[in-house]
Formats: sequence, C-alpha cells, structure tokens
Amino acid sequence: MRQLRVGLIGAGFMGKAHSMAYASMPMFFWPAPAIPVRAVIAEATEELAAEGAARFGFESSTGDWRRVIDDPTIDIVDIATPNHLHPEMAIAAAEAGKHIICEKPLARTAAEAKTMLDAVQKAGVVNMVAFNYRRTPAIALAKKYIEEGAIGEIVNFRGTYLQDWSADPESPLSWRFQKEIAGSGAIGDIGTHVVDLARYLAGEITAVNGLARTIVPERPKQSGGRDALGTSRSGGELGPVDVDDEMLTMVRFANGAVGSIEATRNGYGRNNFITVEVHGTRGSLYFNYERRDELQVCFADDPGDRRGFRTVYTGPAHPYGEGLWPIPALGIGYGETKIIEAYDLVKCIVEGTEADPNFHDGWRISLIADAILASSESGNWITIDG
Amino acid sequence: MRQLRVGLIGAGFMGKAHSMAYASMPMFFWPAPAIPVRAVIAEATEELAAEGAARFGFESSTGDWRRVIDDPTIDIVDIATPNHLHPEMAIAAAEAGKHIICEKPLARTAAEAKTMLDAVQKAGVVNMVAFNYRRTPAIALAKKYIEEGAIGEIVNFRGTYLQDWSADPESPLSWRFQKEIAGSGAIGDIGTHVVDLARYLAGEITAVNGLARTIVPERPKQSGGRDALGTSRSGGELGPVDVDDEMLTMVRFANGAVGSIEATRNGYGRNNFITVEVHGTRGSLYFNYERRDELQVCFADDPGDRRGFRTVYTGPAHPYGEGLWPIPALGIGYGETKIIEAYDLVKCIVEGTEADPNFHDGWRISLIADAILASSESGNWITIDG
Amino acid sequence: MRQLRVGLIGAGFMGKAHSMAYASMPMFFWPAPAIPVRAVIAEATEELAAEGAARFGFESSTGDWRRVIDDPTIDIVDIATPNHLHPEMAIAAAEAGKHIICEKPLARTAAEAKTMLDAVQKAGVVNMVAFNYRRTPAIALAKKYIEEGAIGEIVNFRGTYLQDWSADPESPLSWRFQKEIAGSGAIGDIGTHVVDLARYLAGEITAVNGLARTIVPERPKQSGGRDALGTSRSGGELGPVDVDDEMLTMVRFANGAVGSIEATRNGYGRNNFITVEVHGTRGSLYFNYERRDELQVCFADDPGDRRGFRTVYTGPAHPYGEGLWPIPALGIGYGETKIIEAYDLVKCIVEGTEADPNFHDGWRISLIADAILASSESGNWITIDG
Amino acid sequence: MRQLRVGLIGAGFMGKAHSMAYASMPMFFWPAPAIPVRAVIAEATEELAAEGAARFGFESSTGDWRRVIDDPTIDIVDIATPNHLHPEMAIAAAEAGKHIICEKPLARTAAEAKTMLDAVQKAGVVNMVAFNYRRTPAIALAKKYIEEGAIGEIVNFRGTYLQDWSADPESPLSWRFQKEIAGSGAIGDIGTHVVDLARYLAGEITAVNGLARTIVPERPKQSGGRDALGTSRSGGELGPVDVDDEMLTMVRFANGAVGSIEATRNGYGRNNFITVEVHGTRGSLYFNYERRDELQVCFADDPGDRRGFRTVYTGPAHPYGEGLWPIPALGIGYGETKIIEAYDLVKCIVEGTEADPNFHDGWRISLIADAILASSESGNWITIDG
Repeated sequence: MRQLRVGLIGAGFMGKAHSMAYASMPMFFWPAPAIPVRAVIAEATEELAAEGAARFGFESSTGDWRRVIDDPTIDIVDIATPNHLHPEMAIAAAEAGKHIICEKPLARTAAEAKTMLDAVQKAGVVNMVAFNYRRTPAIALAKKYIEEGAIGEIVNFRGTYLQDWSADPESPLSWRFQKEIAGSGAIGDIGTHVVDLARYLAGEITAVNGLARTIVPERPKQSGGRDALGTSRSGGELGPVDVDDEMLTMVRFANGAVGSIEATRNGYGRNNFITVEVHGTRGSLYFNYERRDELQVCFADDPGDRRGFRTVYTGPAHPYGEGLWPIPALGIGYGETKIIEAYDLVKCIVEGTEADPNFHDGWRISLIADAILASSESGNWITIDG
Repeated sequence: MRQLRVGLIGAGFMGKAHSMAYASMPMFFWPAPAIPVRAVIAEATEELAAEGAARFGFESSTGDWRRVIDDPTIDIVDIATPNHLHPEMAIAAAEAGKHIICEKPLARTAAEAKTMLDAVQKAGVVNMVAFNYRRTPAIALAKKYIEEGAIGEIVNFRGTYLQDWSADPESPLSWRFQKEIAGSGAIGDIGTHVVDLARYLAGEITAVNGLARTIVPERPKQSGGRDALGTSRSGGELGPVDVDDEMLTMVRFANGAVGSIEATRNGYGRNNFITVEVHGTRGSLYFNYERRDELQVCFADDPGDRRGFRTVYTGPAHPYGEGLWPIPALGIGYGETKIIEAYDLVKCIVEGTEADPNFHDGWRISLIADAILASSESGNWITIDG
Repeated sequence: MRQLRVGLIGAGFMGKAHSMAYASMPMFFWPAPAIPVRAVIAEATEELAAEGAARFGFESSTGDWRRVIDDPTIDIVDIATPNHLHPEMAIAAAEAGKHIICEKPLARTAAEAKTMLDAVQKAGVVNMVAFNYRRTPAIALAKKYIEEGAIGEIVNFRGTYLQDWSADPESPLSWRFQKEIAGSGAIGDIGTHVVDLARYLAGEITAVNGLARTIVPERPKQSGGRDALGTSRSGGELGPVDVDDEMLTMVRFANGAVGSIEATRNGYGRNNFITVEVHGTRGSLYFNYERRDELQVCFADDPGDRRGFRTVYTGPAHPYGEGLWPIPALGIGYGETKIIEAYDLVKCIVEGTEADPNFHDGWRISLIADAILASSESGNWITIDG
Repeated sequence: MRQLRVGLIGAGFMGKAHSMAYASMPMFFWPAPAIPVRAVIAEATEELAAEGAARFGFESSTGDWRRVIDDPTIDIVDIATPNHLHPEMAIAAAEAGKHIICEKPLARTAAEAKTMLDAVQKAGVVNMVAFNYRRTPAIALAKKYIEEGAIGEIVNFRGTYLQDWSADPESPLSWRFQKEIAGSGAIGDIGTHVVDLARYLAGEITAVNGLARTIVPERPKQSGGRDALGTSRSGGELGPVDVDDEMLTMVRFANGAVGSIEATRNGYGRNNFITVEVHGTRGSLYFNYERRDELQVCFADDPGDRRGFRTVYTGPAHPYGEGLWPIPALGIGYGETKIIEAYDLVKCIVEGTEADPNFHDGWRISLIADAILASSESGNWITIDG
C-alpha cells in the first residue's frame, strides 16, 4: 500500500491534532487511499522537536524547518505554526514540490496569501487550508441537504464563533493578540472558520459591511515557554493588544442571499460556539458545534401537524459515516474533524484532484477578512474582488 | 377598591389577549392597584363589536371607535388595531384626557409617532406601547441582573426575532404585508420588539447600519373577513408585498456596546423565536422566548471548574413572581406577559408615574426602524437623532 | 347564549387558576358551548371568601361551602380544596345534582374515591378530575399521533414528575406533607398526574411494583395563615412528615407495554419537570412540561439520512390550536391548560357526554396509587383490580 | 522511555477504537507513563489479522490468539472479542502473567466472571474492564463533585441507555442477540455500562428488582463476514433472538439511595442515549452522553434568584483536561474515552496499582446483571451477594 511521508512543522496543540489524525486515519478509512507516515517533525529548537517526535510518533526531528523542505523523501509538508510563518514555509515547500496542508488562516493578509497561492499554482502541488470545522459530519450533511435542494434556495446565512477563553483580561498575551504574528484577532483566528463555512454552504461572498474592535486593550505578557490559551498568569507586565477581540459583519452572497457573521473572544459561557443557521425557501438548517453530533433541519414540505426541526445525529447513514463510528452519537470529537481532513488530503494527493478548501479559498477568505476590517473603518460596504 | 374603565378598540387576536389580561390581572396581582373594568369594545361594525363584547366580557359595544373616546366614564383607551389607525385614535384619546395603551409599533413612521407623542405629552395622560415581550419574567430577571452589575458592563447585544408563519408564499396578503397599513414589514412588526428589548437591556441605540429586503414579492389576496396569519388559501389572486420580509442591522449603543438585530418572516422552523444574547465584562445572558420560562446566565466569577450557563426557571423568587404561579416552570404563556403589562399600566395610572415603554420610547423605536430602512438603501451608518 | 353558573370552593392557588380559566375560556373558544359565570366562591371564613370574590370576580361569597351546594342556581361545583375535603363535598354536590370538577387526586385513598364515584354515577352528573397536564396541547398532540398509529404499537412508557420546591428541609410543613389531609405525598400530589398521562397515552395500567420513601422526616410547622409552597421559615417548631417524598414504580399496561413512573420532591434543579417518553414499534415521543410548547416525535419511517426527533411547536395546526394563539410558540402557560380544561368540562355538560378524566379514572388512579404504596411495602408486583 | 507491548485480540470496531487509543495516548498525556506499542493483533483468520495489522498499525499479526498469549514480549493482552470468548482468553493471559484489559461485559454470567477474577487475582496482574463511558470527562467531573460533597448525600440515581440501531425488526441477527455468544441482550451490552456508572457515582448496589423482555423475537440471519450493527438486510432467513431487548430495574444502594436503570434497543430517536441523573441532599447532576461535552449541576446553596442547572463544558479545568484539548467544547468524542482508558491502564501498570473498574467490578456488575434477569422472572427484589 502506498505511503505518503509527512513532515510536520510545529509541535503545539495543532501538531498534536494532526499527528493523531495521521496515525488514526487508516484505522477509520479503510482501505486507506494511502498510509500517511509520520516522518519528520520540526520545532523551534532541537530539544522541542525531539520531544515532539517522541510524543507524536515521528521517525525523526529537527530544529530547522528547512530540513523538512529539503528532505526529498517527504511528500507532504504540514504547516502548524503561528500565522506569520506560513508564507515563507509554504512557498519554500511549494518550490520543493511538496504537497501542503497549512493551518488557518492562510496568512496575515490577502496580499501574503496571494503569494502563497501563486506559489502552489506554479508548482502544481496539492494544497489545502486546515479549516477543519467543515469536516464535521453534521456540516457535511448540511452541505448534502443543500446540494440535494432539500431546503430550496438559500436566502439567509447566519454564523457565529463565540469563545471565552480570553474573556478574562488577566489571560495572557498569546501571539494570537499580536498583529505582527497573527495578522488580526477574532477575525482571522475564528471568524475565518465561519467565513469558510459560509462559502462552503451558501456560496461565494461578494460584499461585507462590518465592525471590529478591541475590548481588552492590554494583557499580561507571557514569561516564556509555550504559548498558552487562557491560563491566568497574575502579576505579569502588561503588553498591548493590537488586534480585534470581536467582529460582526453583514454579508452578501453571489446568489442573492444575505446574512451575518459574528466572532468574539469575550462571550462568557461560550466555549467553541460555532453556529450556523441557514434559511432556504423550502426549509432551514441549524448547527451548533458545541453539540456537534447533531444537525437540525426543518423541511417546509412536512405536513403542518408534524413539522419542526429534526435533530439528526450523524452516523453511518451520513457523509463520512461509513468510516467513523458504527452508530450515531457514539461521539464525534475534534479529532474526527482532523482525521477526515487528513483523509481528504491524502485522497486528493493520490487521486490528483484539487483539495477543498485550497489556497485559492484561503486567499478569498483573507480578502474577506481584510474587507471586514476595512469596512469597520469606513462604515461602508466593501465589494470583494481580487 | 378603585376601578378603571377600559375602552378597547379592536376585537382581534390582540383584543383577546388584552381582554384576558384585564379579567385576570387582579387574580394574579392582589391587592390590585385598581380593578380594570371591561367597559366598552369597538370594532369595524356593530355586529363584530357586539360579538366581541359577548366573547370578551365587555359591558357594551360600538361600531364607532369615536364613541369610546367620547364616553366620559372611560379611563383607559386601548388601541389594538392595525398600525395606520393608531395616530388618529391615540391623538383623539389624548385630547379627551384618556390614558392610553397602544399596540406596537406605535406608528408607521417616526413622524407619525411624533405627533402621538406630542399629543400625550400635551395632555399629560399615562401612555404605554404594548411591547409585551419585555414583560416576560425572564427578561425582567435579565434586566435585574444587569442593574445589579452581575454581568458587568455590556459589550455586545445580539437579538433575533425569527418566524415562519408567512414563509410559505401561499400564505395570504395580510395587512401586515401592506405598507399603507403596516408602515413596514418584519422591521415594524417584529424587529421593533427586539429594538425594545435592546434599549431596555443595553440602553439607547445611537446608530444603525442594516439591510432589509422582500423575499416573497406577491401573495394571495384575502377574500374577506378577518385578517389571517399564515393560513394557506390556494387560488386567490396575487397582490404585491411592498414591505420587508427580512431585516438585519448592526447597532451601536450609547454606552459603547455594539451588536446586531435580525428579524425575518422566512425562517422555517422558527415560530416565535425571540432571542437575546448579552455579553458583559463579567458574564453573559441568553434568552429564547420559545423556552420563555428560562433565563440563562453565566457569571465570570464562578470557580473555573463550576462555570457555565445557569438555566434559571423564573418563579416566585424572580421579578413579578409573587403575583404569578407558586413554583417555577408551572408555566409562563403569552397571557402572562399581557397580564403583567396590564398590571404595570394600571399601577402607573394609580400612582401617577410614567409608563415604560411609553410613547417616547415608541417614537425612538420608530426612529430606529426608519433608520434601518434608510441605511439599507444608503449602505451607511445612520445616526439616530430626533 | 347559555350560561353555566359556577360555585367554587377554595380560593387558593388553584382557585385562582380556575377563576382565570372561567373568565378566559369564551375568549379563546368561541363560540363557547356555554358561558361559565363566576357565581359564588366559598372559603374557610367569610373574610377569606369575600376577598376571593373581589379578587377572582365572583358575584357572591360564603364562609360555608354547603351554601354553594344548596344554591339551586349553581350548575357546576368546583372543588379546589385540600384532598381530605373532597369526598364530603363531592358527594354532597352529586346528591344536589350538580356537575362537578374536583381537583386531583380525587381522594386520599381508592376507598374514598369509590364513594365519590358511586355518588356521581348514581346522580348522573358530569364529573371531572382536574388532571390538567393532559390538556397541554403537546400532550393532546401526542395522543393524536398515537391514535393515528404514527408511532405504531406502544412498547414502553416512561414518565417523571420531579420538583424541588420542598427539597430544602427548612421549607414548611404544608398540608401536602400530612397524611391525614393529603393521603399520600409525592405519589398523590404529583405522581398521579403521571399516572393519568400514562393511562391517557398508553392505556390501562394492570400492575405496579414500586417503592416510596420519605427523605425529609421533619419540617417546620406553619405558623398560620395560608398554606405555603416552599417558602423557608426558619425557627419554627418541627413536625413530622408522614407521607412519601419520592416514589418510583415499574408498571405493566394492559396492551403488554411496560414502563416506569417516578416522582420526587427532592430533585434540585427540577421545577415542574413532568416528562413523558413513549417508545413505539414505529416511532417515539418525548415531552417535557418545562418546555411545554414542544413535542418531540421520531418516525421510524423517515429516510435514514433524515431521521431524528422532530421538535414540533404546537399551534393552530394542532389539537385545541384553533382556539388558542395564532402562531406556535407564542406561549402556552399553566393558564392555557386550565382554560382547555374548563372548555372540555363545559362542552361535556352542554353536550351531555362523559368527561375525561372522570371520577372513574380518578378512582382507577387512586387504586394505582394505593398499589404503589402496597408494593413498596411488600416488594412484589400488585395487580390493579377493583 | 518505557514501552509496553500490546497484543490485541479482535480487529472489529472495538479493535479500531483501542488501536487509536494506543497510538494517540502519549500525544495527549505527556510525558506518558509509558508508550504502548502496537505489537501483535489476532483475528479469526490470518487474512483478517494481517489486514488488521496493516490498518491499525501493528507490527505483526496472527490467526491464533494463543500466540499472543505465548509471546513473552507482550505486556498487555487486550481482549476485544465477543463475550463468550472472554473467559478462556483472559484466564490464559492471566496464567501467562499478562496485564489484561477486557471488553465489557466481563463475561456472559457472574459465574464465568468469577473464574476470570480468580485467575487475575491469583496471577497478580493488572486487570481492567473496558467500561469506557466512565472515562468521559463530564462523568469524571460528576465523580469529583460528588467526592467534594458538592451535592451532599446522594438520595437518588437514575440512569438510562437507550438505542435504536436494532429497533427495526429487519436489522440483522448480530451475535449480540444470541445468548450463547452474548449471555444477555440489552442488560449485558448496554445496561452494564449504566450499572458501572451507578456504582462509580453512587456506590455499591445491594439489591435490584427489574424486568426484561424481548420485543423483536426473530431477526434475519447474517449471511457471513463481519458482524454488522443495524444494517438492514432484507430477505434473509429469520433466526430466533433469545436475549432481552429491553430492561428496567429498580435499584437499592448500600448508602440508602434508591433509583432506577433502564436500557433498551428499541427507543427510536435515541442513538447512544446514556443519561445519568443524581439527586443529592445539596444538589443534583445530569449528564447525557449524546451531548457529552456537558455536565449539568445544580447547587442548592446558590442564591434563590440565581439557582438552576449550570451547564459546564469540560476542558482544561476539569478531570483529564490538561491532557486533552486546550479549551472546552473543542470536542470530546468516543476516541477520547478510549484514550483516557488506555492512559489509566498504562498508569496502573507502571505504578503497580489496581485498575478501576477491574475484574472485581466486572464480576459485581455481572452479579447485578444476573440478578436483574432473576428478578424479572420472580417479580421480587434480589439481594446482590457474592
């Protein structure tokens, strides 16, 4: 059976998730299109990389990510680093002819993303952006219903991504609050996931009119070591937050639908509250990632005395279900979204097809993110063109 | 015990709700500030009025609403008619020195609403607009938490009012779809309820930037008789809908908070889906009218291992609870919101205090409604001034 | 239009609910089968009765309930007193030829209930027991689905009634904790509601095997005045609780189905948590009174990729819906269950038909309640025969 | 770092879950107590075993499970086969000095389970039964609350496990419906999970009184190949079901609490509906595995106007949270329960401590399962002694 050797850059939380996915994918989707081999892992230092290799089951490790690129045995480069490092790594990988999966958002800005898109298109390599939430089986089921016309023409899309891990002003100044590294805040980190879902389900976004703002202007600097999410560290010196904590935008879609997207890091009680509500001319859909085994769907054509949202628990009868667990509600976790992502990536490489979402999608999403920020300053609708 | 004699104009669904409230209020809130007496009811014809009197327990009836105004024994005029009739009736009632409760929205436009406001201010009568959803005990509890500072400073307010009774293009051309009668569509009919909740909970709205549109451009005309909500009538001649089916707006509040309001008549599966989510610096609130006995509240100060939304069922320990039912979840229905409304109205009259929300609020809300429509056309933020 | 004159005995919480129902019923169900007139109200003293008349809108009042029975103008006697008074009052009313609605449980024991049943059967008067929760539109819809065969043959029924208003040992020794007055505790007060729902939906119960026990053996005596639910009164002298706080039983139905019924007063966080789950050979039903506008139904015949519980919000398309509110989720409260109950009672009287549930049902339910207690002592299945 | 070599018997769904757990455990819990190595996998034939090795990442494979036992390099024997094979395999493994994890239920009967218990006790090896649902972080949090006294003394435990994958009479005659292989039906397959949760949270069960029955007496035989869950296979010859589809039991706990446990395979709309409700003297807990990221807890001591179930999403602040995902609601799936199980197993082996639940627990659970069946026949309470 064919093997695909993976070089992973970044041994943090996302490196963990991807490693678990590579190890587990063939167990779930069998026969696998190919077996991903955890070949080499890179981190900022040799020590961190070696620890990553031991922990995540890689054959070797390196403190220099360029050695991953230069390794001729590597088929896939997996970029799981902070955002500012994506372009250089991805372009180098593309030039080396590697297939690439890059964490989201693709880059800090659309301009940066465009350089990456140009590189992969020139190189002709398979390229994917890790917007994993669209891999949730319930989202894939929503897509299926829409494609079957089960809810008619879409008229409205509303999406949210609400969190609270950094709502406390005492939570540390992660790189996610620094424009130089992250590009933007809630928009890029979480809002882009919803933009991805919106484009996936309702089609291309043509214009936005939004607002963005910073709620917590200063946070305690981290004293060193790994970047931490939300752990209070009292007493640290404060540093400035120069990205948005919260964003809200109206959107217009190419097919005439309208809607809204909201993202915040200051919604106490909301943990990973990714919701999607879609109104169509013949029905509606509702999804809440915090209860991700479920998709709610209402069909207008149901008899009047029996109509209402159906709560469908995804399982073998639904997309990706054959490969996952034998009955619904056994339990879809974050890991499964990454296992499916790895499966789709490997399948595209083996079959020589375009990945989805790819760097073109990633670039479009960056254009939209840039436009949300621009509209927040101008107060006007911004047309997305590029 | 003091009695207050009520003259009700309109014997439709809203007349039913108000009649039930007047009959029931002293049963719930005892000793009652005064006993409302169902004195006279007016409808478009003598026959309809007489039927209304028999059905709703009024002493007398009339086919001419001006006889209600002219009756010197009447203390309260209750206007439960379509919107276009509000101004003339309210102004006449004010000039006759009657206290007034008027159904929402106060008028078709802010300009009309202003004439009504001027009249009641000149007359010095108690005036109330029947935005009843703020009377839901769970909303009153949300207000209490906010006033106690339990969720800190408000940073975000998100409200929705989603319905589907007219999502079917075959549902009839009610007056609610006709600009000449209704003024606007989803904005005025349901969006204004959310605007009322937003102002009640988060304070004055200073600017909006929204969009509004018609999804179903034509509907079957009604063949006569009472106006119907959502009953399909196949085969009727089509008439034009000239109001909005759907609206969405960003909002800015005087205190710096931001947020969004959405209203639609085309959200299949959503029946009377009034939701409010408020993010504060020390906690959050969530309310869904379809499960109106419940308020969800998250306190940032709860210990980390015990934090999450609390689902509080309103009862005797909460606002208005002493007068309602003896334990939580026995069941708050639409009637209770109207009973509380009647109680607050009568109390204001007896105590000589301002009602809340009054015509000033109603006018401000109309300004906001007008501004949402205007911003939908211009694509820009509109500042609310008046 | 025909009138039916009502004599109400008891001006407590239940008197309030019934008064509201009589006043409101014609407003909802129009044309009404007859107009109930609030004629006379009786309480323990003249003062309490007079206050009740003023508050609940009765023409007259009395401190002697026998004057209600003796009044030849009275058509309906409504017994809303503690349980131990039911038999004497009901038998007297029957002998006087009055139609009767009696609060639940019908009596403290099946033997007492049987005397009441004999009296009404002998007198030939309409008789109803006020198990109002079966009047919830969502329960009536469940009944409709079952009768239509939409979920096939019933195989399992599970019902609960969980409360916490008296979970605190400091809450007062209401009459509901005294066997002499109440007969039993959780079984009679709340468990019988579930038994009523079980018989209504799944058919006759033929055997039970349960357990019952007292969790809080002593409570502070009430210092006087009205009986209170759950209000803490620190410092009072303790008195013994001689009824059950909690019961749990397995049940067997005549049609071969099995199931369980549980009732407790010590379930913190559960307020009026009446739930019903029914498994049939072609589908399932779930109902939770705390979210009473909703019925959940799953149809086995739905396509595999679209199957799941539908959340149906009751409205005009469902039982009693034409008379209630114009759209679903506008809000069913406790009041509506009593309005429907009053409507069904009046309709039976006018049409000369049997009420449902009647004293025969009330007696059967008492037999079951007695059997639960007996099986708790013996540890064996008890067959219900009578 | 120490390694522990695993020999896995069974390459079905459960083999998949365990393999994923061994591969992923060190990625999550780091530094890991030891690294589990997927050494050898056994299946019924060499071909199936070889395929399992390729799919699940094992070094070698065998068609003879005894070769796993005989391999001196193997530290852990993992038994993931149908129930009837457990005793022989486990006893052989114990005699060979292997540590053992065995799928649930431990055996078909308590008598069989006892032979296994005797064997592991004699051998002194670490032994665990794979009741994985207690590893759900929300269940571990429930345990923590209880141990902290946060809900006081437990008075009631109610647990359910409802499924519908075999509700359709056309679903195939899996081994799970054959007494010779499975021992019992719903009781052993799913009911024992709830018994495990009950004992874990509320303590030892001392007596039961239940009922069990078969709803679908015949099912189509499987035509060969792997055992399938719930896939309809029309046209097959029917074979008899000789185990229970549904069970219901009352339970008594050593500490005086009472409760009920229910399990069914015929609850349409319920997929993997494992619920737990615990009432204590100072609060309550509720858990529903279908929404497994959440635990609901109500504290009696919360102020009256702020009391209600808190919905706590498990994350880093809760048990096992440091090793799992960085924020709550990122997503706990079935895999995570097995990863935690593997972690606890490996930790016990390294630290030389007793596993939990071990074969002693498994045997006690089998005693309870046997007693439920016995009480179903006798109609009486059965005391658990052994």
